[in-house]
Amino acid sequence: MDTYALVKEKALAAQKAARKLAAAGTEAKNAALLAMARALEENEEEILAANRLDMDAARAKGLKSSLLDRLRLDPRRLDDMADGLRQVAALPDPIGEVIGGGRRPNGLTVTKIRVPLGVVAIIYEARPNVTADAAGLCLKTGNAVILKGGSEAIETNKAVTRLLAAAAAACGLPQTSVQLIDTADRQAVIDLIQMQGLVDLAIPRGSAGLIKAVVANSKVPVIETGAGVCHTYVDEDADVAMAVKICFNAKVQRPSTCNAMETLLVHRAAAPAFLPPMLAAYLEAGVELFGDETVQSYSPKVLPATEEDWAAEYGDLRLAVKVVGSMDEAMEHIAAYGTKHSECIVTENFQRARRFQQEVDAAAVYVNASTRFTDGNEFGFGAEIGISTQKLHARGPMGLPELTSYKYLIDGNGQLRS
Amino acid sequence: MDTYALVKEKALAAQKAARKLAAAGTEAKNAALLAMARALEENEEEILAANRLDMDAARAKGLKSSLLDRLRLDPRRLDDMADGLRQVAALPDPIGEVIGGGRRPNGLTVTKIRVPLGVVAIIYEARPNVTADAAGLCLKTGNAVILKGGSEAIETNKAVTRLLAAAAAACGLPQTSVQLIDTADRQAVIDLIQMQGLVDLAIPRGSAGLIKAVVANSKVPVIETGAGVCHTYVDEDADVAMAVKICFNAKVQRPSTCNAMETLLVHRAAAPAFLPPMLAAYLEAGVELFGDETVQSYSPKVLPATEEDWAAEYGDLRLAVKVVGSMDEAMEHIAAYGTKHSECIVTENFQRARRFQQEVDAAAVYVNASTRFTDGNEFGFGAEIGISTQKLHARGPMGLPELTSYKYLIDGNGQLRS
Repeated sequence: MDTYALVKEKALAAQKAARKLAAAGTEAKNAALLAMARALEENEEEILAANRLDMDAARAKGLKSSLLDRLRLDPRRLDDMADGLRQVAALPDPIGEVIGGGRRPNGLTVTKIRVPLGVVAIIYEARPNVTADAAGLCLKTGNAVILKGGSEAIETNKAVTRLLAAAAAACGLPQTSVQLIDTADRQAVIDLIQMQGLVDLAIPRGSAGLIKAVVANSKVPVIETGAGVCHTYVDEDADVAMAVKICFNAKVQRPSTCNAMETLLVHRAAAPAFLPPMLAAYLEAGVELFGDETVQSYSPKVLPATEEDWAAEYGDLRLAVKVVGSMDEAMEHIAAYGTKHSECIVTENFQRARRFQQEVDAAAVYVNASTRFTDGNEFGFGAEIGISTQKLHARGPMGLPELTSYKYLIDGNGQLRS
Repeated sequence: MDTYALVKEKALAAQKAARKLAAAGTEAKNAALLAMARALEENEEEILAANRLDMDAARAKGLKSSLLDRLRLDPRRLDDMADGLRQVAALPDPIGEVIGGGRRPNGLTVTKIRVPLGVVAIIYEARPNVTADAAGLCLKTGNAVILKGGSEAIETNKAVTRLLAAAAAACGLPQTSVQLIDTADRQAVIDLIQMQGLVDLAIPRGSAGLIKAVVANSKVPVIETGAGVCHTYVDEDADVAMAVKICFNAKVQRPSTCNAMETLLVHRAAAPAFLPPMLAAYLEAGVELFGDETVQSYSPKVLPATEEDWAAEYGDLRLAVKVVGSMDEAMEHIAAYGTKHSECIVTENFQRARRFQQEVDAAAVYVNASTRFTDGNEFGFGAEIGISTQKLHARGPMGLPELTSYKYLIDGNGQLRS
């Protein structure tokens, strides 16, 4: 079968499954999620064997160690995947929730209820944990999911998907609730994100390149996730000790995440007290620093920052640092280089804190806390399918309600429009 | 200036305006809306003169009369446009509304508030009333709008947009809050819907062809609007007299709208009592009927229905009619040919009414009322920018909240992620 026919067949099967899933009760969906968790645990050997095939092929291809680490499964990581499914089972089911409505003057009653989106396509890289995560979140919200993971993880994903689909089927839900596009043909992604009328939403998860390619080629609705050029602005009225701790945490605690800080902006008046201890802490932690001339004057180890540094999502222990003359200059910089993900001001000044939160255009705007908190679990959502950096449908961390749509039920007794 | 440069310049200006509009207060926005309404009334002669230029050119090009009628303005239609702006001014402002949040275990407070989308592009045909409508709705929700109307209306749109922008500026809001792409170059639409990072949402309003073209070419988020192949299913337990009235209203009251009925499905057991009076009423009203063999057996005036009829959005006094053996067959037909807009069952049976509403996948699912009620005003929204037929972000009639996004404000006192 050619790639287009393969993708279309899966999309049609997903649409059929979606109709059944939309009508499935919470108990059936939760039973399936628990069965899926058990299936991962009970078939550990089969999954790890498939993962070894992927790892061997990846090593032979010379994949770099950070990618090999993402690809690798072990018993502990498999347990985490199973636990994730159990946590999703424990969350409240958003489907069917009444979210609006009322009686109209003509006697019609309008009831707005949450419904599944239908068919969700997830396009991601070689991270097998996303396979179970995405499958669980979509099943809980009554959506059929079509997974297209990185080709390096294909054997692992095939094993995991087969087990998850079988577990769903054993609980009376459609086998095709969870499907994998299991071809290495890159055209499959294009075909998938152009299945208008069959795919209701595509979510790319991964590198900026992957996300850009999906946005550029998609003919179905897309939610952009993840690119995070996050700033922390240390105001002239910052508590210096607090600012040092927040900025250290935002950069160093887990620099590969999208909510980690990439550029530090410092008010000129705060620089003399703040920069010496801050730069020392960073240098001790192995952070490579790129700064403007003022920042460089504080340490010979600060390299000159270029235009690329202000726009960079390093994703590692590098940081750009700039001294600004005012909060307005900081906000201009953020508007010019930020990705509307997470931005922070450290200040004790009430009016500036308020203005910064109102005027900075980002999914999450912090006062006096690390940007690392932009995360579904930290916000109390219990789960997360990704972090949206667009403004349509969902913004910031996406939990279960963000995987739903709604419809209106209208009841009458013969009302006519005049 | 070439078209791309022109569009980019307007998009950049819109983005700048959007930052100011996001911070604008409700009183300033309402004052601008009222000033915009007055500007249309006080400059009636200027607008009508511009409209005459468009009408003359359109007649010379041989535009058909229904299109000429949409293009034509007169004092009454201008008054309606002004009244529309005043109605929007009277609606509650959704911006700033707190729609979620709480205190996290670590002491962080999270506040989810409504914010504008940013820059909204509206692509539409030669209907000058959309120009004022869209400008008003976007301004009220703090969005900068870029309008691209049909080239036949260009002189009218230029006059209207100039007056609206000047009125906004006179009230202290940016002149570029409301902008028109005033070139006839069709490339402008493509450029506009590919302005990633500058345009936050594109809404096409108009024919299926226009919507398709926007969806196929856009690289910014799009909301699809309008295509409506709506069905009414007359169940075996329908109240026949009510069914005749509902089906007549759904087809005849205003057949050009997207919520008008296009296909009538009749349970076999209901046909003998229902079809004779129904077909007679339709024929008397000049409705052209296309039916299957059973329907044809009731009247020699019923023409044979083809596959195209089941998929047709006639938009006029034509109707497809089919007899089905069960509600399941009706729902299968709706799933195969419907556009997920508005669907109706006429029945006195509780269980079937409930199942139909739960299982039919559409923005609005009716029991015992005309599908013609799918409309922002009828649902109590006070205004409508369009009717979404997709499931992402907005579904069904879109009012003011559907033109907003949200952001999270997070307040802390030095919280760090561990």
